[in-house]
Amino acid sequence: MKIALAQLNYIIGDFDFNTKKIISAIHDAKAKGADLVVFAELSVCGYPPRDFLEFSEFIESCENSAQQIAKECVDISCIIGLPTKNPKIEGKDLFNSAYFIENGSVKAVVHKALLPNYDVFDEYRYFEPAVDFKCVDFMGFKIALTICEDLWNINDNPMYVTCPMDELIQEKPDLMINIAASPFAYNHDEERVLILGDNSRKYKLPMFYVNQIGAQTEIIFDGGSLVFDEEGALLDEMPYFTEAVRIYDYDQGKIQGLEAFQHEPQGDIEQIHDALVLGIKDYFQKSGFTKAVLGLSGGIDSALVCALAAEALAPENVMAVLMPSEYSSDHSIQDALDLVQNLGCKHEVIPIKEATLAFQNMMKPVFKDLPFSVAEENIQARSRAIVVMAMSNKFGYILLNTSNKSECAVGYGTLYGDMAGAIGVLGDVYKTQVYKLANYMNRERDIIPQNSIVKPPSAELRPGQKDSDSLPEYDTLDAVLFQYIELKKGSESIIQMGFDEALVRRVLKMVNVAEFKRNQAPPILRVSPKAFGVGRRMPVVGKYAG
Amino acid sequence: MKIALAQLNYIIGDFDFNTKKIISAIHDAKAKGADLVVFAELSVCGYPPRDFLEFSEFIESCENSAQQIAKECVDISCIIGLPTKNPKIEGKDLFNSAYFIENGSVKAVVHKALLPNYDVFDEYRYFEPAVDFKCVDFMGFKIALTICEDLWNINDNPMYVTCPMDELIQEKPDLMINIAASPFAYNHDEERVLILGDNSRKYKLPMFYVNQIGAQTEIIFDGGSLVFDEEGALLDEMPYFTEAVRIYDYDQGKIQGLEAFQHEPQGDIEQIHDALVLGIKDYFQKSGFTKAVLGLSGGIDSALVCALAAEALAPENVMAVLMPSEYSSDHSIQDALDLVQNLGCKHEVIPIKEATLAFQNMMKPVFKDLPFSVAEENIQARSRAIVVMAMSNKFGYILLNTSNKSECAVGYGTLYGDMAGAIGVLGDVYKTQVYKLANYMNRERDIIPQNSIVKPPSAELRPGQKDSDSLPEYDTLDAVLFQYIELKKGSESIIQMGFDEALVRRVLKMVNVAEFKRNQAPPILRVSPKAFGVGRRMPVVGKYAG
Repeated sequence: MKIALAQLNYIIGDFDFNTKKIISAIHDAKAKGADLVVFAELSVCGYPPRDFLEFSEFIESCENSAQQIAKECVDISCIIGLPTKNPKIEGKDLFNSAYFIENGSVKAVVHKALLPNYDVFDEYRYFEPAVDFKCVDFMGFKIALTICEDLWNINDNPMYVTCPMDELIQEKPDLMINIAASPFAYNHDEERVLILGDNSRKYKLPMFYVNQIGAQTEIIFDGGSLVFDEEGALLDEMPYFTEAVRIYDYDQGKIQGLEAFQHEPQGDIEQIHDALVLGIKDYFQKSGFTKAVLGLSGGIDSALVCALAAEALAPENVMAVLMPSEYSSDHSIQDALDLVQNLGCKHEVIPIKEATLAFQNMMKPVFKDLPFSVAEENIQARSRAIVVMAMSNKFGYILLNTSNKSECAVGYGTLYGDMAGAIGVLGDVYKTQVYKLANYMNRERDIIPQNSIVKPPSAELRPGQKDSDSLPEYDTLDAVLFQYIELKKGSESIIQMGFDEALVRRVLKMVNVAEFKRNQAPPILRVSPKAFGVGRRMPVVGKYAG
Repeated sequence: MKIALAQLNYIIGDFDFNTKKIISAIHDAKAKGADLVVFAELSVCGYPPRDFLEFSEFIESCENSAQQIAKECVDISCIIGLPTKNPKIEGKDLFNSAYFIENGSVKAVVHKALLPNYDVFDEYRYFEPAVDFKCVDFMGFKIALTICEDLWNINDNPMYVTCPMDELIQEKPDLMINIAASPFAYNHDEERVLILGDNSRKYKLPMFYVNQIGAQTEIIFDGGSLVFDEEGALLDEMPYFTEAVRIYDYDQGKIQGLEAFQHEPQGDIEQIHDALVLGIKDYFQKSGFTKAVLGLSGGIDSALVCALAAEALAPENVMAVLMPSEYSSDHSIQDALDLVQNLGCKHEVIPIKEATLAFQNMMKPVFKDLPFSVAEENIQARSRAIVVMAMSNKFGYILLNTSNKSECAVGYGTLYGDMAGAIGVLGDVYKTQVYKLANYMNRERDIIPQNSIVKPPSAELRPGQKDSDSLPEYDTLDAVLFQYIELKKGSESIIQMGFDEALVRRVLKMVNVAEFKRNQAPPILRVSPKAFGVGRRMPVVGKYAG
């Protein structure tokens, strides 16, 4: 039996696009001799469809697509993922299902039992968990077919009280197939290899695991589909961040012609780089846009975003706008111009002095002689937002946001100012990681000017301002933030680790107070296990500070 | 047995505040002869605590508060709500629980079985559902104690496969107590009376139902706690939108001294009014702010928000900023000034001409002679946002957002411009409801100038502009939006109702395309069964348009 794994990039709700792509992969796989092509979880509609699932016409479109796909399954079978209706009155109205299609019709339907409902996941919002389990017979083999999370309940603190494979194994299946929508985080490839290998070892079965690739707004799927032998040894790993279809030969109870090897993870920074490039690219392609605009300050964050955008969209599609003020240093402008030259992207220089003077005059009757404060600082940041948004509105550029995760965390940014943008490129990348990423961008030649990398970070909103005037040094700040955000430790636990008590309390309070800002921030490309946005849901009005 | 129902207003994560409030109510009830005081769901930490629940120090604080409360229970018992740890390894780590406290210690713990995970609810994100059910014995009576959703599975399309009362009824309880966190929507009081009465009738038991009141950012709890006799007749209904404690006499199997009556719902508009006033008030009080700022255009939306804010915060705490441009009509300025005078709130007039001229000059080298477009319109809206945010930054005013639900739906608003604000007051109120609400505000005297109500709506961002240039008439628009948003009908179903096909397709497309704007909008006070924000989760990048 020849099994093809199709690791593809879908568009949520674009049934024509997804159906055509699936059918085309079926024809290709058939031409190459495959007996079965396996597509990812909810491949028919894209993942995550969110509340589109609550529209019955959306569910009907999924079924219509499945019927179109079924018609193409002549002398080849396939597995696709889609939502299906729960025929019972009790329970939620939908299942998260897989269709096993053979000879032009649906031969078996498998429902997902374990519904992730943590971090970015909301599956119990829509789906009823499966309670019946049955293997699928195909070409004389018994296949234990499961969906993503169904295989993830085998650690020390299982989140669910049932374990689908413990049920399916009663039927003595020959192999396992799992269809997934498993999002990228810089450590998730290693977790996947571990957990799926554990399943193969535990059940003594070969495993075919197919993930999807592609960014869906903030959630990035990285592919890396996997094949294991019946002893849990890794036999193949499909590429990351790119579409691929590979065909495997399963015969005489074994996967033929492959040698076991160790998973060699890419470095975190390299993975984050690849994820961000795909994240930008897919945001634009799937929204139907081609051109990006951003404010280029001469600092490292905007330089890095500019370089990533040039890689994702091509330099000629990136417009960098330099918006110096009276507080901008000369080197900032030069650093920004150097970057533009290194990249070959477009640029404009639009000083903001006229705007800030205008607001100064307009506010004078109200502000009178009150001293310069954050109000005047924010007027600068917001005037810049008006300029780049005007470029967006006039020419169809999409604004990229350049705030990093450290800034987002403590609220060191201006709402409706530098926090503006359609998509946050670095919002899940701590400042200390930003430096590493900038150096990685320069691995072959200097793209980001060294001066942008080595100079002390500054918002340049008042004379001589430095980030360190308002914030702890980034090494310390990021270390505390990681404990609080990624590891969910409270103030007491973090202080017990040896961090300064006053600093910890101050940082945690800043994080919680900034919730109202993050609540209005753009979606942030998720590259860590805990990103701001849909995967971290905090009360805006609430008193708890760790 | 005397049972006190305590319908109180909590602050999420403010353990000192909540604990003191609960203890004070216990002492008061004891002084009035109560044997048992019943508090609402998650009363110890406030509802919804969201991802604070993932912090173990937060859970420990809940337990500490419960122990403090228990110490005060001398010669009186109480029921409080809090998250508790699941001692089993399998399943989620927490339960949503009720403590029954007697003689200074926890006598019984009841866990919630039905975990709402739709609209604004995410309970399965945190909690394991209960599978064991047991009544609580107290003063010789058997109490069937349940938590909110546990009683809501008795309609025609039950969302859950279990029904807790069907289990508890086996023990032949004497009465039911349900502790709730049931949010306001203009139709939800009627649903509550119906569902809880149905429970009393089905199980032939008296019912004591305690809700909470108070706004938690966007979610507003309206109270209206209920008491039913064993035949499902309504015996008492506590007030809406205000704290209250009432004591009931349960003796000889019956609730004594009360007559059955019919629930008389307030009008929708009156309820929405009360909810919005509470929503504004609690946003400010719980955030520690007192003063609001908003842009006052002379139009009906900002006039209405200004009047609601004056009612919630007192007129002297409301700063209305008039920001006329060359496209503002004379009557707009006069209408705004009339409103300010009617309300007695503060105001400033800050024309934006200087700013728009500055941006015009700054953009000239790039825009050259391109015609006036949405870019120039948005510069005006965004310049106004800079002005009101400068007022906020300089003086500590909090900006109120004035966008209505019709605008939010179709994206008729400027991101970082008139879409700015800390809290959206009218974002769940359709334009057709805005008119009704304005007339309601004027029920005793003219507060909102008639001219603001009767003139054709206009953004006044270009000469002679009217909303109807870009949008269908609001009567039609709102009717289509209601079908799509509240009733989740797709385009085909809406067209079949008789609406114009092209109009329906255009409106639904506008709604979906505007998702990226709404994604960065402020939290919106929820007054309908389906508000934009946390209760409606759509992909930002996605192709489906109904």
